[in-house]
Amino acid sequence: MKIHNYRQVQPQNAAPGVTMRVVAGEAEGAPTFVMRVFEIQPGSATPFHTHPWEHEVYVLAGKGIARSGSDKETPIAEGDTALVPPNEQHSFLNAGKDVFRMICVVPLVNGKMPGALPK
Amino acid sequence: MKIHNYRQVQPQNAAPGVTMRVVAGEAEGAPTFVMRVFEIQPGSATPFHTHPWEHEVYVLAGKGIARSGSDKETPIAEGDTALVPPNEQHSFLNAGKDVFRMICVVPLVNGKMPGALPK
Repeated sequence: MKIHNYRQVQPQNAAPGVTMRVVAGEAEGAPTFVMRVFEIQPGSATPFHTHPWEHEVYVLAGKGIARSGSDKETPIAEGDTALVPPNEQHSFLNAGKDVFRMICVVPLVNGKMPGALPK
Repeated sequence: MKIHNYRQVQPQNAAPGVTMRVVAGEAEGAPTFVMRVFEIQPGSATPFHTHPWEHEVYVLAGKGIARSGSDKETPIAEGDTALVPPNEQHSFLNAGKDVFRMICVVPLVNGKMPGALPK
């Protein structure tokens, strides 16, 4: 069993104002899917984008907005979970004053974590 | 996008003193893996067991112990993550006075969430 705290994992810049920590991935021997922890700064967002794999999201802290499809916006906060199906446009925005933190799990694609966020 | 709070999901009894909520699974259209939220009562534990699929765990609250292999025991708390590889024996115990809450993600096996915990 590989155990560590997400705070011990080096954050990567995923988009402006957005960091990603890979907490359970290829390096830890994950065979099927990858768990990441994202932090979005106030006023920042992940790009509105789409890809052929799903996300499973769990909100750890902060106040955010999940944007999906054409215009739908849903407020999200601690304990909320979101399933983003493959090929659905989506973005997560920090709408609060504190950091917005969420887990986002993606499948391995051809044995690797699929590409980073578009810049 | 399917959004709900884990508290809105009906808990299932997974073992004595252990409940499971499936927050992103087949019903929500999950194609590859399933996110569940477990709550373990003080003094309770998941059975020490093994299976041919992995777990990816994130501790949300409480103080626990992760037991793996033959005798190894590791204290775990908020923000800790654990990757349990396939076929490794494991158990999670609540060693504190409050509820121990964790996310546990498993792959779909033949399109379904693999079996419940042994009783």
